Amino acid sequence: MQVVSRTFTPVCACTPVMVGFFQRTLRLRTALRHLSPHSTVSSAATAGRSPVDLRGSFLPAASWQLGVCCRTLHSGSDGSRPSPAAAPDRLPFSRITGEDLAFFRKILPGRAITDPDLLESCNVDWLKSVRGSSEVLLRPQTTEEVSQILKYCNGRNLAVNPQGGNTGLVGGSVPVYDEVILSTALMNNILTFDSISGILTCQAGCVLENLSTYLEDRDYIMPLDLGAKGSCHIGGNVATNAGGLRLLRYGSLHGTVLGLEVVLADGRVLDCLATLRKDNTGYDLKQLFIGSEGTLGVIAAVSILCPRKPKSVNVVFLGCETFEQLLKTFQLSKGMLGEILSAYEFLDSECMRLLNTHLKLPNPISDCSFYVVIETSGSDPTHDGEKLHNFLEEAMTSSLVTDGTVATEDSKIKALWSMRERVTEALTHDGFTYKYDISLPMERIYQLVTDMREHLGDRAKSVVGYGHVGDGNLHLNITSPVKDPALLAAIEPFVYEWTASCHGSISAEHGLGLKKRNYIYYSKPSQAVALMGNIKAMLDPKGILNPYKTLPDNLK
Amino acid sequence: MQVVSRTFTPVCACTPVMVGFFQRTLRLRTALRHLSPHSTVSSAATAGRSPVDLRGSFLPAASWQLGVCCRTLHSGSDGSRPSPAAAPDRLPFSRITGEDLAFFRKILPGRAITDPDLLESCNVDWLKSVRGSSEVLLRPQTTEEVSQILKYCNGRNLAVNPQGGNTGLVGGSVPVYDEVILSTALMNNILTFDSISGILTCQAGCVLENLSTYLEDRDYIMPLDLGAKGSCHIGGNVATNAGGLRLLRYGSLHGTVLGLEVVLADGRVLDCLATLRKDNTGYDLKQLFIGSEGTLGVIAAVSILCPRKPKSVNVVFLGCETFEQLLKTFQLSKGMLGEILSAYEFLDSECMRLLNTHLKLPNPISDCSFYVVIETSGSDPTHDGEKLHNFLEEAMTSSLVTDGTVATEDSKIKALWSMRERVTEALTHDGFTYKYDISLPMERIYQLVTDMREHLGDRAKSVVGYGHVGDGNLHLNITSPVKDPALLAAIEPFVYEWTASCHGSISAEHGLGLKKRNYIYYSKPSQAVALMGNIKAMLDPKGILNPYKTLPDNLK
Repeated sequence: MQVVSRTFTPVCACTPVMVGFFQRTLRLRTALRHLSPHSTVSSAATAGRSPVDLRGSFLPAASWQLGVCCRTLHSGSDGSRPSPAAAPDRLPFSRITGEDLAFFRKILPGRAITDPDLLESCNVDWLKSVRGSSEVLLRPQTTEEVSQILKYCNGRNLAVNPQGGNTGLVGGSVPVYDEVILSTALMNNILTFDSISGILTCQAGCVLENLSTYLEDRDYIMPLDLGAKGSCHIGGNVATNAGGLRLLRYGSLHGTVLGLEVVLADGRVLDCLATLRKDNTGYDLKQLFIGSEGTLGVIAAVSILCPRKPKSVNVVFLGCETFEQLLKTFQLSKGMLGEILSAYEFLDSECMRLLNTHLKLPNPISDCSFYVVIETSGSDPTHDGEKLHNFLEEAMTSSLVTDGTVATEDSKIKALWSMRERVTEALTHDGFTYKYDISLPMERIYQLVTDMREHLGDRAKSVVGYGHVGDGNLHLNITSPVKDPALLAAIEPFVYEWTASCHGSISAEHGLGLKKRNYIYYSKPSQAVALMGNIKAMLDPKGILNPYKTLPDNLK
Repeated sequence: MQVVSRTFTPVCACTPVMVGFFQRTLRLRTALRHLSPHSTVSSAATAGRSPVDLRGSFLPAASWQLGVCCRTLHSGSDGSRPSPAAAPDRLPFSRITGEDLAFFRKILPGRAITDPDLLESCNVDWLKSVRGSSEVLLRPQTTEEVSQILKYCNGRNLAVNPQGGNTGLVGGSVPVYDEVILSTALMNNILTFDSISGILTCQAGCVLENLSTYLEDRDYIMPLDLGAKGSCHIGGNVATNAGGLRLLRYGSLHGTVLGLEVVLADGRVLDCLATLRKDNTGYDLKQLFIGSEGTLGVIAAVSILCPRKPKSVNVVFLGCETFEQLLKTFQLSKGMLGEILSAYEFLDSECMRLLNTHLKLPNPISDCSFYVVIETSGSDPTHDGEKLHNFLEEAMTSSLVTDGTVATEDSKIKALWSMRERVTEALTHDGFTYKYDISLPMERIYQLVTDMREHLGDRAKSVVGYGHVGDGNLHLNITSPVKDPALLAAIEPFVYEWTASCHGSISAEHGLGLKKRNYIYYSKPSQAVALMGNIKAMLDPKGILNPYKTLPDNLK
């Protein structure tokens, strides 16, 4: 599939601009810089350690038994006291009986799956860090079927794990114990598209990339784009309030989602599937379900406002000496690129080292402490090229950036984007990875990485920072050769306390799921968490929807 | 104050473009057209009737007595059965005592107002269509004071009417009976502004225009702009999910508001005043209060994401023969103006007649059936001028638009905008006005006006349509020489049923307030309304916050 945000539209008119920039770049190019001071520590820590692929690190399926507690997550440093991320004891939900299976088979002929081999991939998360032991996977095709399932499960007190593309990173998308898995995979119909307003309605199980393809054929794009686009479902995107690469330009799903059809825990269907940009008739109920991670209702259909497909997309890759310069460059880009700025992402020199080492990706520019990926998208290729040229000239002459390169063809655009997008993959080759997804005031973003490096010293193998700097969103990742409870104890709660001291968020876009649920108080006051508990109790009194997720254990 | 969206930045580079367009316009200009067929009816209806200024039509203050039911709204056609818009009976809240006043005076020295003259303007709405009879106006300065007030009122079972700038159009911002008025007028401090991220935090009582001025000095703008900007408070804007003129570009407040501090009915302070673009730690509680019209909590402070101030603003005024052409022109503008399109507004020929007749505003172009106001704002004046030129050339040569003019200087920009903004004022001179604020699928917008004209025949004086066509938002207004229950009975429920048949919203941006609360079922299913009732009961069990508003009477 052709992906707009990565596809450059070759435009003769802007090529001279780019060539001019290249020449200037060569003139301004400084001598190669060594890696940042911090890299010395990490490089030393790497020596003599073989990388461990996280995906191979969990126990084989056979070691799990139905209904047995599976504390697969990192436990406390002393090995006996479970970490706040570990699963709590199983709640007293009913267990699946033959009668239950008969009911499911009756309403979903051929779509109530109990074959353990077929259930395997739905019981384990993408990171292979959490495993449930569900015995049944239900694949409804319609809202009415979802309603029948939930009505039945609520009556029987059976817990339910709603599942989209299962691409979440916080253990929210798989069962913890034996919850019934309710997959949206077969709810994949596009319902309507209005080419005047750009409003799309579709079932929750539509894969994001398929929606993108559909829209691009009609001169529109989805307002969100994620690395997981080939697997993730739009319903899951909405349920987790996914952020991604276009948030800087098109805003969050709280603004772009116009309507939802939601099945409540007891099977009632809440029809808020409006296709209107404006509707102030009463409380905006759909907002409750955006980001509630399937704990308040199952999203069955979505209506969403889609932007026009840009006629011109450009990508530049820049290097900065300091994080302060990187922020000043961001300010400059906001002023000079203005309305065509569509992404401002960064990675540090440690990320570049991992890309070089583990994926053999060469640095496209000279070594710098920080790298920036800027994407522009607009309606006029000539204008966009001129804006970009003027911006780059100003950034270079004012010494904000040290080096840079502009993508003029599709393959190079993809190559530049991969420097940002493949950091996650490079990390999996570096060792066991502790992942943090933090929102901070923009000027504090990198201080956390620096402080963490100093705090951990040589206990960590690598401490790297990258992410959506334009949104104030840092992905802090720390690796060790193998899972290391002592290292974890050094990282947490340090990372959460540090974030809380800056009034940041301990989960910017990944959500809380199973893994982060008990850390919620670092970012939300107890008053707010208590109110969340009230809302949960109001909408799902038996607590059957995605239990053990999002809300902290002490609310239950 | 300089208002960006109305202020043209003169740019030499784009002047030739504009001149070129003017010349072309002259060449393409068609012969003057007569008014639309519908105007004949309305013009005839106007004959011999003197316009009535709505503002003078309500009873004098002396005719209201404390605690007396004031059904000032349009009642049913038979005069005995109250309309669904009329106020319900007073609920059994306590009445203010001397002891209560003593308490308020103690915690708000000099700011607990009981002087009837000072209370007058707070008891009556801007349209002078609803009047309450509150005996006390409280003017807190801090969140803590709001908390003390609500804790006390909740304990005493005293109803409270939260009030911002009192610019609402649905009777939501004034007391219905003797509710305590809690004004945010003295909560007008800007708290923080981050010039890197563009995130502003301020108290709820900041006047929108003051915030705009503050931001413009710092190279930013507010993401919303309203006709009422000189009076309305940001807290009221958020409480009513105000739309306005920039929604097309910057989206709704559900996307741009990043945090809220809210005082709940019992005085508890809910601190969700984050200043982060991304925060997925639990349910997004602040969303509940956006658009809840003060019925779930009192917004005390707001954090909001502000866009950079555009360097270039242009306005064009175009004429189209048909509404279909107007929509095609919108499509064309989305493609060719793309990211710089910041407003696409319309008015019909009947609006133009009222502007000519009552305000002596001349038509800046030749007579057409429909008029469009397009605003662009961008970061490069030359580029914006070129885009606009290319768009206009295409629109003219493809005969989508009949005539047009471009504003090249500030005074003309203001004059063009006033053609759209002063329609409301012109209507007040035309007679008693029945106002409807409808969201519809874009292609259906004007059919409602046409059908209403046909439906009413000569019973109405004028039937006009204007509004935010780019957002699918029609302002349908109908006038009669004086208040006319028979006319009202012909309009309602016709207008609501028509809207519901298109899955539209009977209140796009004005909210439900007192006047529209019982019409909610035309746009929301009973399941959703019942859930709203549950949320209200959860957050405000005694129902003291802005009673008689937003939710229908049958929920109480």
